[in-house]
Amino acid sequence: MQMPQPDASVLARKDRLVARLSQVLAPDALIHDPAETRAYECDALTAYKCAPMLAVLPRSTREVADVLRICHEEGVPVVPRGSGTSLAGGALPTADSVILGVARMNAVLETDFDNRIIRVQTGRTNLSVTGAVEEEDFFYAPDPSSQLACAIAGNIGMNSGGAHCLKYGVTTNNLMGVTLVLMDGTVLEIGGAHLDAGGLDLLGVICGSEGQLGVVTEATLRILRKPEGARPVLMGFDDSEVAGACVSDIIKAGVLPVAIEFMDRPCIRATEAFAHAGYPDCEALLIIEVEGSDPEIAHQLTLIKEIAARHDPVEFREAADADEAGRIWLGRKSAFGAMGQINDYMCLDGTIPVSSLPMVLRRIGEMSKDFGLDVANVFHAGDGNMHPLILFDANKPGDLETCEAFGAEILKLCVEAGGCLTGEHGVGVEKRDLMLHQYDPVDLEAQLTVKDVFDPAWLLNPAKVFPLQVTEARRARPLAAE
Amino acid sequence: MQMPQPDASVLARKDRLVARLSQVLAPDALIHDPAETRAYECDALTAYKCAPMLAVLPRSTREVADVLRICHEEGVPVVPRGSGTSLAGGALPTADSVILGVARMNAVLETDFDNRIIRVQTGRTNLSVTGAVEEEDFFYAPDPSSQLACAIAGNIGMNSGGAHCLKYGVTTNNLMGVTLVLMDGTVLEIGGAHLDAGGLDLLGVICGSEGQLGVVTEATLRILRKPEGARPVLMGFDDSEVAGACVSDIIKAGVLPVAIEFMDRPCIRATEAFAHAGYPDCEALLIIEVEGSDPEIAHQLTLIKEIAARHDPVEFREAADADEAGRIWLGRKSAFGAMGQINDYMCLDGTIPVSSLPMVLRRIGEMSKDFGLDVANVFHAGDGNMHPLILFDANKPGDLETCEAFGAEILKLCVEAGGCLTGEHGVGVEKRDLMLHQYDPVDLEAQLTVKDVFDPAWLLNPAKVFPLQVTEARRARPLAAE
Repeated sequence: MQMPQPDASVLARKDRLVARLSQVLAPDALIHDPAETRAYECDALTAYKCAPMLAVLPRSTREVADVLRICHEEGVPVVPRGSGTSLAGGALPTADSVILGVARMNAVLETDFDNRIIRVQTGRTNLSVTGAVEEEDFFYAPDPSSQLACAIAGNIGMNSGGAHCLKYGVTTNNLMGVTLVLMDGTVLEIGGAHLDAGGLDLLGVICGSEGQLGVVTEATLRILRKPEGARPVLMGFDDSEVAGACVSDIIKAGVLPVAIEFMDRPCIRATEAFAHAGYPDCEALLIIEVEGSDPEIAHQLTLIKEIAARHDPVEFREAADADEAGRIWLGRKSAFGAMGQINDYMCLDGTIPVSSLPMVLRRIGEMSKDFGLDVANVFHAGDGNMHPLILFDANKPGDLETCEAFGAEILKLCVEAGGCLTGEHGVGVEKRDLMLHQYDPVDLEAQLTVKDVFDPAWLLNPAKVFPLQVTEARRARPLAAE
Repeated sequence: MQMPQPDASVLARKDRLVARLSQVLAPDALIHDPAETRAYECDALTAYKCAPMLAVLPRSTREVADVLRICHEEGVPVVPRGSGTSLAGGALPTADSVILGVARMNAVLETDFDNRIIRVQTGRTNLSVTGAVEEEDFFYAPDPSSQLACAIAGNIGMNSGGAHCLKYGVTTNNLMGVTLVLMDGTVLEIGGAHLDAGGLDLLGVICGSEGQLGVVTEATLRILRKPEGARPVLMGFDDSEVAGACVSDIIKAGVLPVAIEFMDRPCIRATEAFAHAGYPDCEALLIIEVEGSDPEIAHQLTLIKEIAARHDPVEFREAADADEAGRIWLGRKSAFGAMGQINDYMCLDGTIPVSSLPMVLRRIGEMSKDFGLDVANVFHAGDGNMHPLILFDANKPGDLETCEAFGAEILKLCVEAGGCLTGEHGVGVEKRDLMLHQYDPVDLEAQLTVKDVFDPAWLLNPAKVFPLQVTEARRARPLAAE
C-alpha cells in the first residue's frame, strides 16, 4: 500500500501550528516531539504505520472545536482517534496530519435510569459505560471484543457491534444523540434523549461515518435493564455447511437468541490447545445464548433443541450452572488470542445474508486451496457477520500479499452473495479500494457529496473509507468561494 | 396559514410540461384537467387545500426518473405522494407543483423468508405488505393506524410508527434499503438486504426526510416471524398522573411489552358511547399487550401486575380468550373515529421522555383551562409518543386559531421536557414554523446543507419541513454553475 509522504511544507507549517495550538491547549495536551508522536503511528491494524505531525489530547468539546478550527484555517488534515483499537486502520495517521485523541474526555455527564439513557464524553471506554450503570442493574448493549479498551468515539465511528448484537442491535440502534464538532469548529447537537425529531435525521449518517464528517465529543446512549438470566448451549456438527444450515433454520423460525457464534475445526483446535475449554473435536461448533426469565430461557432452548436435532449434532451441551456457562464461552472469547499464538492472521469482517452461509463457507474452503493459505472461521453467525481469519507467515516473503489478495476475494464474494464489505470493523484504509465493488459510482457519488458539505476541504480523517484516487481528486478541486 | 399562490409563469409553463411528460407517460398517468387535479388538493390534514398544476401516476422507477428529470429541467416543483393519509400536510401541493403519486407502483418484487426480507414498490399499502407474507407466518411490524390505506412510500417519508412500535421500532428500524430517485433523475441504490455497509450510511437520513431528498420507488423491508401468541391487559386508574407513573415504572423495570396505550377520561367516554367496548369509567386507562410463548406471556404479565398493584388500579382485566382480547382493543382502535363523531379535533404528535409523562399531562390539563378548549389524550405511552386531541368547533369563529395556538404550546412543552415535535406524523406544513423551537439555527443549517446537495434548487416537496422563510431564502439563492 502506498502511503502519503510528508512534503516540505508540512515541516514548515509545524512550528506555526504548535504555536497556535499551544494558545488553546494545556502544555500536556500537545505532543510534538517525534519520539512521542510515534506512539500514534498505528492502530490495531499494525501492518500500516505512519507517525503524525502532531498529536493533541483535548479535554473538552470547546478544546476540540478550537483545535479543529485552527487546523481548518491552516489547511492541516486531522485524524480523530478513540483508543486506537481499529482493525481497519481507521485511526492511521498521515505524515502531514494532526492526531486528535479523545481518550482524556471520559466523563459520565448524566445518567437517567427512568428514561434509560446515559450521556458520556466519547473517550470513555465501552465497558466503563456499563460500569457506570451496573449497580442499578443496567448495561450498555453493544459489546465489541475490544470493549475493555475501545472508546465510544470509535464505536460510533465504526458503528460497532459485538457478540450480543443479534438481539440488541449495533451502535446505531443504541445511539440517541451526539455532540458533533465540524472541521471548521462549528458545534452541532444532533438527536437527543427522545425519539426521531422532525427534519432530516443526521444521526444515522454520523454513526459509522469513520470520522469523515466531524468529531463526536459527547454521546447520549440507550441503556437497558439487565436480563434476569442467560444460558448458552454448545452444539457440535461434523459438517460446516450443516452447522450453517442449522443457524439459518433457527433464524428463519423466528427464535431470537442474544448470540449465535460459530467456530470451525481449525479455530476449535487452536482454541483448545490454548484455553482448554473442553470443546469437542468436530468440524463446526455453535454457541447459542438465550436470555430472559427461567421459563423464557427454557422455552427458547426447547425450540433450538428441536431445530438442532434435525441437523444431527454430534454434541449438544447445555450449561447447568454459571461455571459451565463460563466454560462454554471461554474458548470463543479466547479464539483470537489463540490464533495469534500460533499464526499471523488477517481478520476479515464481511457480512452475508444468513441463508448464504453454507454456500459462502464452501467457496471460502475452495479458495483456501487455490491460494494455499488456511482459513479459520469464527464469527457472529446469527446476523451473517463473518470473521474469517486467514493464516499466513509474516516472515515468508509474499505471504502477506497472497493473504491480502485472498482477503479481497472473500470480501468480493460477500458482496456478490448480497452482503457487504464490513459488518463492524469499518472500511478504514484496509478496504477503501474495495468500495467500488460495493457501490456503483453514482451511489458512491451521493456519499461524496454529503462528505463535501460537512468537510468541504476533505481534511478530516484523510485517505480512508473512499478509494484513494477519489479522495485525491476531491482534495485537488478548487473550493467554491464561501 | 399563507399558501403560495400560482403566478402567471405557472400557467404558461403548463402546456409545455404536459407535452414533455406525455412523451414519457401513458395517457392515463398524466392528469391535467383542473376538475381532476382537485382530487389531489389535500391529504388527511384537510384544513389546508391547494390544487396542484398537474398530477402524474407513474408505474415504474424509470417513469419516476423521467418525470423528475423533466420537472428539474423545467424548474417545476414536485410533491411526492403515497396514499395521501398524512396528518401533517406532508403531501399538500403548491399551485405551481406536480403531484407525483406512487399509488400505482404496488408490486411485490421479491420475498425471501430465509433472510426475512421483502422488496416492494413503495406505492404498496402497509397492511398489504403483511398480506403478502402472512401465509408463511411472517408480518411487517410498523403498524400506523392508517395501515389499511397508507403507502410504504409515506411510511418511509414520515418514519411511521404505530401501536406496536414500542417493541419492534419504527420504520427506520425495519427498513433495509431503498431505490431513491433524485430530483435530476439520478437513480440511487441505498442499503440492501444486508447489515450496514461501509461508507456513509445514507439510509438513515432518507428515512423520515419527508420527500425532501428524493422519491423512494422501491424498498427492502425486514419481515418478522409472527409471535406465538399475544395477550392484552386493561388497567383503569382514578388519576392520569398515577397511570403515567405506572407506565414509567414498567419501562424502568425493563419489561418490554409490545404496546402500552393510554386513554384519558374524555377519550374513554367518547369511545364507550361509540364502540361499547365495556371500558370502566375512570380517569385513565392503560392497554398493555405482551407477546411470545405462553410461559413468556405469563411471566411478563406477572411482573406488570406486580408493578400495577403498587399504583392501586381501579380495574385490572386480563384477556382470557381472543374475544376478550378483541374487546380490549376495540375501544382504542375506535378512539379517533369516536372523537371525530362528536367533535372537530386536532391530533398532535409530540414525544416526551417517559419519565416526564405525569408532569406533561398535568401541564396540558392546566393549559386546557387557559385556552378554554378540552383535550382528550390517547397515545403510545410506552415510548412517550403522545397524541393529545384538542377538541374545537370548526363552525365557531376563532376556535381553529385558538386550537392551533394551544397545539403549538403543547408541542413547545414537549420540546422543553426533552422530547420533540413529532413522533411519527412528521413536520409537513403543520409544524414547519415550530422547527426553530426544536433546533438551534446552526443545527438546522446542517440539515439544510444536506438538503442542498440532494436537491440544490429546492424543488422537491416545497414549503414543508423547514420554516417558510428558510425555504424561500434557499430558493432565492443563485445556484452555483455545475
